[in-house]
Amino acid sequence: MAVRRLLKVLDGETLTPPPIWLMRQAGRYLPEYRQTRQQAGSFLDLCYNPELATEVTLQPIRRFGLDAAILFSDILVIPDALKRNVTFSEGKGPAMDPIEVSDIASFSKVDVLPHLCPVFETVKRLRAELPQETTLLGFCGAPWTVATYMIAGHGTPDQAPARLFGYNHPQAMEELLATLADISADYLVAQIDAGADAVQIFDSWAGVLGESEFEKFAVKPIQRIIASVRSRRPGAKIIAFAKGAGLLLKDYRQKTGADAIGLDWSVPLSFAQELQKDGPVQGNLDPMRMVAGGKALDEGIDAILQALGNGPLIFNLGHGITPQADPENVTKLVNRVRGFKR
Amino acid sequence: MAVRRLLKVLDGETLTPPPIWLMRQAGRYLPEYRQTRQQAGSFLDLCYNPELATEVTLQPIRRFGLDAAILFSDILVIPDALKRNVTFSEGKGPAMDPIEVSDIASFSKVDVLPHLCPVFETVKRLRAELPQETTLLGFCGAPWTVATYMIAGHGTPDQAPARLFGYNHPQAMEELLATLADISADYLVAQIDAGADAVQIFDSWAGVLGESEFEKFAVKPIQRIIASVRSRRPGAKIIAFAKGAGLLLKDYRQKTGADAIGLDWSVPLSFAQELQKDGPVQGNLDPMRMVAGGKALDEGIDAILQALGNGPLIFNLGHGITPQADPENVTKLVNRVRGFKR
Repeated sequence: MAVRRLLKVLDGETLTPPPIWLMRQAGRYLPEYRQTRQQAGSFLDLCYNPELATEVTLQPIRRFGLDAAILFSDILVIPDALKRNVTFSEGKGPAMDPIEVSDIASFSKVDVLPHLCPVFETVKRLRAELPQETTLLGFCGAPWTVATYMIAGHGTPDQAPARLFGYNHPQAMEELLATLADISADYLVAQIDAGADAVQIFDSWAGVLGESEFEKFAVKPIQRIIASVRSRRPGAKIIAFAKGAGLLLKDYRQKTGADAIGLDWSVPLSFAQELQKDGPVQGNLDPMRMVAGGKALDEGIDAILQALGNGPLIFNLGHGITPQADPENVTKLVNRVRGFKR
Repeated sequence: MAVRRLLKVLDGETLTPPPIWLMRQAGRYLPEYRQTRQQAGSFLDLCYNPELATEVTLQPIRRFGLDAAILFSDILVIPDALKRNVTFSEGKGPAMDPIEVSDIASFSKVDVLPHLCPVFETVKRLRAELPQETTLLGFCGAPWTVATYMIAGHGTPDQAPARLFGYNHPQAMEELLATLADISADYLVAQIDAGADAVQIFDSWAGVLGESEFEKFAVKPIQRIIASVRSRRPGAKIIAFAKGAGLLLKDYRQKTGADAIGLDWSVPLSFAQELQKDGPVQGNLDPMRMVAGGKALDEGIDAILQALGNGPLIFNLGHGITPQADPENVTKLVNRVRGFKR
């Protein structure tokens, strides 16, 4: 089998140059994505269409030869599988029926896996079609982040409804997060069984939590997912990305049991270096540098390579690439990273 | 003159119990505010009406006897004075004409102070009407935060347009921020001359900046404001609040020259303790605890008092109080903080 470089970094190796992939690399900034997108009905239809989801996942690999492909899907397929009436509308973001405390008990009784079968089929096709050396990543949303949408019924600037729910109903919140953790673990195990080499857990809203809530609502459920996945699939490789967690990342890898942690672009590189002493890190270029290009792009890349290139690093953005990004800048990024020498 | 307790803390003293005020304490959660609000036309009309702005500023002082009153105004009166056509619409937030690079040079030629005269009149009336022991705070927005709105023309989830502008036009951005810093310094000096005892600079969007941009766009302009104010009003007391800055708060007080730094609710209390060794801190209760009340409120208060009550602390929320907050919870908060004994 060809060497999957990203997996070596997850084992703690330092590779030069570091492997690279980009969050949301299959997305609207690519003309070929926009074309395929038109062939699907809704956004969720695309997520559940193995043929088209495979196609869009492969597009950035064909174009840029990135080290990893990430399954095209969405973190909200879980509430969708829980029949929360999830919709995505252009420009307005996702929406669903907001939950009540009394809804929570029913969630653990739903077998979500049949609904998610098309996702596993996509993973299977991807592993068959990807180059041998390309790592295939599966993923899910972190329970806290998924819960913020399920509670508010939509995105908000600081997920205040979910924070309030946590204060008002601490036990119901813990039950919801534990249930989502168990469902997510099943979901990740099925992705691994279908052929995912590693998985990433996205906690996009970890940054709105105070210290004690971060522990209860962000760390604990991810611990639970990872322990559950590893008990069934020993050695499963897992990246945890807690956006905006700042200082609370200090012992996040240790506490959650993740192999590597993702860093957003606000994480200072000196702190990232400290974190890297404990284990592999992934990140953390500001996605806006991919829009700006030129000097802003080169300087951003070089700063990360300088600071983190001498340890276990997966080069990535600090958040998803945006629709305005120029695909030409991805080529430049990949070339520059691949040209790095220690 | 009666002792203004908050000013003693800004001098580095530890007071027991700590003084307390709340960001956005004159606001929609108060029925008397909503009543007065109806008497003004637009939101900006209220900001520029000395009689009504004085009234709403005094309302929370009458009700709760807080240690400080903060001038009722808005950070966007500066772009309004620069004729950017600022409007506030219910539920949609502020909007204005987005700037072009070519607009920036003209801003330094505008004398904004005449337009802001009603604000200074409000400050004057407030100092005359407030109890002697109540500290009167003036404020302005930080140049970066004000610029994010001027560039996008409205608020956005992560101020990507301003981040992009900074990468695309680094020199124009520095010029814009320097100009806004100079205007803000004049504005703060005029507030101090009208009777403000201390001022706060709000950098609500500091948290979206990467490390090197934080230095250039957040730290440097605030340094410039503080140096300018102090050169003209030696000993002027200044609080700087960089929301979401996390680890970058480490030397923020030293670098900016602020007397105290504000902490948002995501700042871990162990880190807040470290920061407090260097100087006074202000914060940092999650505003959602003011909506939840009960145990969530009490636990949040006690954790802060335990961790920070033995050093120079100004008790506050970690962000503005929200419209859903129960005024009764403010009474409970004030009583609990006032009951604190070391």
